[in-house]
Amino acid sequence: MSSNYRNFRNNVPWLILFLEAVFIVLFYFLFSHGDESRSMVSYAAFQDVNHMVIFGFGFFLTFLRRYGFSSTGFNLLIVVLGVQCSVLIEDLFYFLLEIPYEDGLKRITKAAVSITAVVISTGAVLGKTNPVQLILMTVVEIIVFHMSRWINSMYLQVPDDIGMMHVHLFGAYFGLAVSSCFSEPSPRSEKNASTPKSALLSMLGTLFLWVFWPSFNSVLSVDNRWKVTYNTYFALAVSAVTAFTFSAMTTKDGKFRMAHIHSAVLAGGVAVGYTANRIRYPWIAMILGLLASVITVLGSYCLQRCLNPALKIHDSSGVHFTFGFPAVLGALAQVVLLV
Amino acid sequence: MSSNYRNFRNNVPWLILFLEAVFIVLFYFLFSHGDESRSMVSYAAFQDVNHMVIFGFGFFLTFLRRYGFSSTGFNLLIVVLGVQCSVLIEDLFYFLLEIPYEDGLKRITKAAVSITAVVISTGAVLGKTNPVQLILMTVVEIIVFHMSRWINSMYLQVPDDIGMMHVHLFGAYFGLAVSSCFSEPSPRSEKNASTPKSALLSMLGTLFLWVFWPSFNSVLSVDNRWKVTYNTYFALAVSAVTAFTFSAMTTKDGKFRMAHIHSAVLAGGVAVGYTANRIRYPWIAMILGLLASVITVLGSYCLQRCLNPALKIHDSSGVHFTFGFPAVLGALAQVVLLV
Amino acid sequence: MSSNYRNFRNNVPWLILFLEAVFIVLFYFLFSHGDESRSMVSYAAFQDVNHMVIFGFGFFLTFLRRYGFSSTGFNLLIVVLGVQCSVLIEDLFYFLLEIPYEDGLKRITKAAVSITAVVISTGAVLGKTNPVQLILMTVVEIIVFHMSRWINSMYLQVPDDIGMMHVHLFGAYFGLAVSSCFSEPSPRSEKNASTPKSALLSMLGTLFLWVFWPSFNSVLSVDNRWKVTYNTYFALAVSAVTAFTFSAMTTKDGKFRMAHIHSAVLAGGVAVGYTANRIRYPWIAMILGLLASVITVLGSYCLQRCLNPALKIHDSSGVHFTFGFPAVLGALAQVVLLV
Repeated sequence: MSSNYRNFRNNVPWLILFLEAVFIVLFYFLFSHGDESRSMVSYAAFQDVNHMVIFGFGFFLTFLRRYGFSSTGFNLLIVVLGVQCSVLIEDLFYFLLEIPYEDGLKRITKAAVSITAVVISTGAVLGKTNPVQLILMTVVEIIVFHMSRWINSMYLQVPDDIGMMHVHLFGAYFGLAVSSCFSEPSPRSEKNASTPKSALLSMLGTLFLWVFWPSFNSVLSVDNRWKVTYNTYFALAVSAVTAFTFSAMTTKDGKFRMAHIHSAVLAGGVAVGYTANRIRYPWIAMILGLLASVITVLGSYCLQRCLNPALKIHDSSGVHFTFGFPAVLGALAQVVLLV
Repeated sequence: MSSNYRNFRNNVPWLILFLEAVFIVLFYFLFSHGDESRSMVSYAAFQDVNHMVIFGFGFFLTFLRRYGFSSTGFNLLIVVLGVQCSVLIEDLFYFLLEIPYEDGLKRITKAAVSITAVVISTGAVLGKTNPVQLILMTVVEIIVFHMSRWINSMYLQVPDDIGMMHVHLFGAYFGLAVSSCFSEPSPRSEKNASTPKSALLSMLGTLFLWVFWPSFNSVLSVDNRWKVTYNTYFALAVSAVTAFTFSAMTTKDGKFRMAHIHSAVLAGGVAVGYTANRIRYPWIAMILGLLASVITVLGSYCLQRCLNPALKIHDSSGVHFTFGFPAVLGALAQVVLLV
Repeated sequence: MSSNYRNFRNNVPWLILFLEAVFIVLFYFLFSHGDESRSMVSYAAFQDVNHMVIFGFGFFLTFLRRYGFSSTGFNLLIVVLGVQCSVLIEDLFYFLLEIPYEDGLKRITKAAVSITAVVISTGAVLGKTNPVQLILMTVVEIIVFHMSRWINSMYLQVPDDIGMMHVHLFGAYFGLAVSSCFSEPSPRSEKNASTPKSALLSMLGTLFLWVFWPSFNSVLSVDNRWKVTYNTYFALAVSAVTAFTFSAMTTKDGKFRMAHIHSAVLAGGVAVGYTANRIRYPWIAMILGLLASVITVLGSYCLQRCLNPALKIHDSSGVHFTFGFPAVLGALAQVVLLV
């Protein structure tokens, strides 16, 4: 360990403390109360999103051997920094555009949904970045995400609850873009290895995400919340079934493999995010879930064998096919449904 | 591994895919929207049942060494197939009898409650069946369960929310019936062994079930929901205390053993399921919880030593005394309360 | 193992059974229904507190090597006994003072909040007591806690929802008082050791507590519930950030250590408990969270090196600085805000 590196590491806490001080000062100037009398977001739904981000993504990122249980702790740090940052940016926009403030719970919930983009990006750069880079990425990504959201909202007239669903698409490709700036770790490096036990923990994270996904998709929808819930549920159900099927098909002994299921089980929920409040019948959501799952599995094969080496993209936890592809499919489905 | 077996395993994914295709086609024809304006089931309560089925029973089944964390994944497959199947059967009945449709969330919640029967049966045949047999059992059991429920509802005038509580009784004895068709695995087989670590995971599943049981009992009750909740809570509390007591009594060194607690802690919740909305005072629920726990512990001794070898029943995870006996007690209590 | 000890152990189940019988008899005489038509406590909030007590504190106590997963089981026993005892004492007070009864759900929720005091005290005496002592401590502490709460309520006019927040302060110092009665276990004893794996499980418990803390603080507040929720959330967020910062500062290699984070991450939630419904702006809650976290980290250093050996206090899981100090800070903040 060089003395240079040690100096650098010693600066990590000061950076975080400085950031936190800035946040508190900004909260003093920017945060105002909205109309708290009636919240659009139920407390239980907020808690579900909160769990999903802390536990679901926390465990989802534990699949590398070096990032054990402790990654759930580090995930907590990124989430709490990102949520504060996100609330502040939101408040700044409201302040500059002189829009009436929303209630506090809705703002925190929106911040918790936004932070999903950062956590997904983290999955792409895991094992290649140090804490300072991750924390800077968190702040930059949250700012860029909110800017893209406001451009969508103002120029493309995308409703706010749909605009929030861009987190998966945005998170996956932002993560890949950041990932391409770093050199690939040597394949023999143990940082990049996963063990059966870490894969199992990751599976647990996937289950958490699976259970909370209907809450995630429905938490910000203003009307048709029940429709969003059960469309998401059926899409997830079908993509879970498809994930198991393809896993059994592609292994030689016909057994289910965690790694395959891990990536494809959530595809339906991601794909249906944009359109869940418009889909009339569950069978449409189910077909979307099926397609999303197939695309994820095929994508994971193509990418890992052909595209990634060619494009020199290194994607630690496969966020490209786990979140990127299904989100693209969802966006296409949205366009088809609008036409 | 014979080539016959390999051919068979290769057919597993095609069976699942075929089943899923049939489900999507049936959804296209059968699923209609009910009155979505006001749901009887709160979203939080649905989520609780969902968690309970995915996490609670998922971990509950991990107590065999061979069925580690991965069993939570396989549990997910059974649940999602079963829920789709259950929603379809329900819709078919509504369609044939020309009853107005219920809202989507209530139908999914009912399906999630029904699938509990299948998961309990799975506990009885664990370690003896292959995936195809389990999937076929899922579909057949869901169909038979709904038929029995409709017979109850039409000829015996059992209200629907009480009829759903038959899942434990039905699941336990259906599982035992299926189990008796398979030959018992040789005692030396490692498939049948459990390790301390797997017993601990199973304990975690029990805790999940314990926490969510009041939600499970109250989710479908139309009135007196609070009464159901706290009657169930007190019954569970007393059966937890009794389980610890009996565990300390029956071990030589007076220590608590996981295996005993595992089976008796939930007895109160099962027993009180039928009658929770009628019981006026919590002390009645508490006595019922005490009796259920005692019956479970005594039952586990009698069954494992005398009855099972005589009847040639092999019950992998003891669903007979964990769910069967307390459910019988609950049914008796219902009869007594009605008289 | 002496025969004396064995006799004693054999009496454990009889003690528990006797206690349970007394509880059922008292429930028969004391428990009356309140006005159930409209509950002040939402069912989802009750479930959150229930989870927090069973899972959060259950895992929080697993950090000693000897108290593995099984401590989550023992925690369950203490909780269910304590909740029954707490409901009874509450009902006795209502009966004696002829106050109209509250609804059942609210009474169970209050009991679940009260039991937190016992679970925190358990943290201080862990590894030094036997089951009988713990069970007696549970009953005595619940009685003393309710007496102190009623003194607060009647003579100091403390509103009931704030009075409940004394659980942390009360639990920590009651635990320390009990702990000082026992001789310190020899440092070489394995009972007192913790392993990396048990520290990780404990971290998981901390995460559970972190996620559910806003529910815990807001569950009993009659008005301004949303304000309590997001003040608590921001206080927790800042104390999480501060915990990571100080952890990186105080280790030589600048890495995050679980043990530090473990104790400081929750400080904000504890400190803000008394005042969350009065704090107007989140930045006040954030500064309180920052101070609480700093006090906890500094406190843990001072106590472990200077004070504890001098005062001969042995505090197994550091409840003094984890819950005691932030609660004192919170009480001071309350006085400042009132003035």
